Amino acid sequence: MRDVAVIGAGVTKFGERWDDSFRDVFVEAGLKAVQDAGLTGDRIDEIFVGNMSGGRFVNQEHIASLIADHSGLALEGHVPATRVEAACASGGLAVRQGAQAVSSGLSDIVVVGGVEKMSDVQSDQSTEILAAASDTEWESFYGATFPGLYAMMARRHSHEYGTTREQMALCSVKNHSNATMNPTAQFRREISVEDVLNSPTLADPLNLLDASPITDGAAALVLAPAEDARRCTDTPVYIAGIGQASDAIALHDRRTLTTVEATEVAVERAYSSAGIGPGEVDVAEVHDCFSIAEIIAVEDLGFFEKGSGGAAVEEGLTELNSRVSVNPSGGLKACGHPVGATGVKQVAEVALHLRGDAGERQVDGAEVGLTHNVGGTGGTAVVHVLSREAPR
Amino acid sequence: MRDVAVIGAGVTKFGERWDDSFRDVFVEAGLKAVQDAGLTGDRIDEIFVGNMSGGRFVNQEHIASLIADHSGLALEGHVPATRVEAACASGGLAVRQGAQAVSSGLSDIVVVGGVEKMSDVQSDQSTEILAAASDTEWESFYGATFPGLYAMMARRHSHEYGTTREQMALCSVKNHSNATMNPTAQFRREISVEDVLNSPTLADPLNLLDASPITDGAAALVLAPAEDARRCTDTPVYIAGIGQASDAIALHDRRTLTTVEATEVAVERAYSSAGIGPGEVDVAEVHDCFSIAEIIAVEDLGFFEKGSGGAAVEEGLTELNSRVSVNPSGGLKACGHPVGATGVKQVAEVALHLRGDAGERQVDGAEVGLTHNVGGTGGTAVVHVLSREAPR
Repeated sequence: MRDVAVIGAGVTKFGERWDDSFRDVFVEAGLKAVQDAGLTGDRIDEIFVGNMSGGRFVNQEHIASLIADHSGLALEGHVPATRVEAACASGGLAVRQGAQAVSSGLSDIVVVGGVEKMSDVQSDQSTEILAAASDTEWESFYGATFPGLYAMMARRHSHEYGTTREQMALCSVKNHSNATMNPTAQFRREISVEDVLNSPTLADPLNLLDASPITDGAAALVLAPAEDARRCTDTPVYIAGIGQASDAIALHDRRTLTTVEATEVAVERAYSSAGIGPGEVDVAEVHDCFSIAEIIAVEDLGFFEKGSGGAAVEEGLTELNSRVSVNPSGGLKACGHPVGATGVKQVAEVALHLRGDAGERQVDGAEVGLTHNVGGTGGTAVVHVLSREAPR
Repeated sequence: MRDVAVIGAGVTKFGERWDDSFRDVFVEAGLKAVQDAGLTGDRIDEIFVGNMSGGRFVNQEHIASLIADHSGLALEGHVPATRVEAACASGGLAVRQGAQAVSSGLSDIVVVGGVEKMSDVQSDQSTEILAAASDTEWESFYGATFPGLYAMMARRHSHEYGTTREQMALCSVKNHSNATMNPTAQFRREISVEDVLNSPTLADPLNLLDASPITDGAAALVLAPAEDARRCTDTPVYIAGIGQASDAIALHDRRTLTTVEATEVAVERAYSSAGIGPGEVDVAEVHDCFSIAEIIAVEDLGFFEKGSGGAAVEEGLTELNSRVSVNPSGGLKACGHPVGATGVKQVAEVALHLRGDAGERQVDGAEVGLTHNVGGTGGTAVVHVLSREAPR
């Protein structure tokens, strides 16, 4: 097995992109990534695309073929193109499949992308479409939406560990603050704890400003064998570890509401293959689809003891250039959450920090980064550990 | 890179399965495959699931997590589970990703499955859902359905090469005849050329009996490293070559209507990695979503010269135990076409023949087999070459 490097990254502006089509949004990200790698399209051996629900958001399946075509990779080169789906973890799984294609030796240069165009449907439809990430026969059929499911996790976390509404709100506040420094973020404005607490209730205790938004956007990476990476770029970033895990898709079938076991298992697999522990992570993009999800994530990823995530946020231990810089991009909350793109954007963001290219929001001296992407309420989790240093 | 073997295969009854849920249909196939391999679930390292449109057929995305869960692989083992989609080629791409996971060394025992439950929606909705495999903004939006698109390919093939309606009909006749010997096939009855020609017109020149049906069903395989295969089974079947290719997703953007270039490129890649040519293939499952597609396929796969596919079918050269036994299962036409499952079922069928386990429809002395799975009208094609003999 070969080691794998990220040699290019591109993220589109996230937001409501009324004037751009699904295919255009993706191609914009892909081009950015390929140009960032200093390559041309004829070098690409294969593409993987993460997308949750093109079939329902934009009436389009067979997405990887569409994208290969509109990227100019189909009529010329007939490049293999594969869509990967695991709800909001689709992008993270696409990264993993792309890395596997390179590590196996089957492909050399692989483009991995993620895309979602969510604003072409009415917002009540978005909630229904996203609910298809749950166990629809046993959750959404009975009225459970994602805000409702995460609200139950929040309630239980508060009950068991005393996590407060303010601590949850502080995740959103921090992520909005980080997003002010990210040119591609959807919401580039500060908010306060009061703003969060006074925003409309979605599913008590979670309010509108605890939740990630509906977003159009795409992200892409260029992957290459580690041994060739320095021929393309002076600042390759290496994929040091990958872990993916499943759990019961329905929340009511899990052992606990306050730990996402798929995260625990995925990160253990990733740390183990990278040969590192949570104390070595400088920067992390974690899956904050709701504020409570960030608190649970920083515990499950081993950054803080179970139950102490809320306090850690309150103490500022997840702010930029603190103990571990969590969601410098603004996270799903403020950077935006085009569901199929998120897992790829996370890797692109961490790569920027490890390269020293993150501008105003740069995490100083970042050497090791981590991405954490979740499908549904935790039926799927995938973690990547990234490093400035080439694997031994 | 390690070589990969198929050590277990399972296919459900194909048809209208009103009494069984999406998840049950898949789990039935998975269990059959795992039992066929003589294994238990705790040996499984990873699963891949091909599915085209669970989001629209059964209101369920995040399918691989659902299936891992209901197979007992999520709560215990937290087995990584990934859905792969490329319209009707979803199953074939899942097989390729599964093989890549084994060949890379990342996983040892991988279950690859495909599933579609298509009969839970009205039949006019099925046609609309399937149309999302086309370039929806430029094809289905203007009224093009898949029968219409393939009808244009048929018209042009007749125009260029003199292919006749009777020759197309004979593909359906042969496949129905083969299906009478396949216990899992949807339609187990003979039909005549007259039946095909007198059936209702879908899109001239194609009639109802030129078209594959709406089908519920699933198929699964167990893959293992070739070096370990004989520890599990006396009759491993080896994946000798894999090729995947893209082409313009829209028919009007292609160079030609009478060749599926993605097939030509995919099969060349597969033959090249297997070190064989078309003359060595004894048995092939090809993508006969419409009768004309089988004629084009047997040409593009190199079994017959371009333009002579219709004549070859008429001369009986694709019948059981002829020059090349094409679609012994009954093909998509008569075995049925649960779109996400088809590419996996094709490999399962060919594996049975190479093992000598295909019963009444056994292709005598089959040593080398091929599967050919197409997405849309040819935006994606994937070919697997299978062999009784271990790769050198």
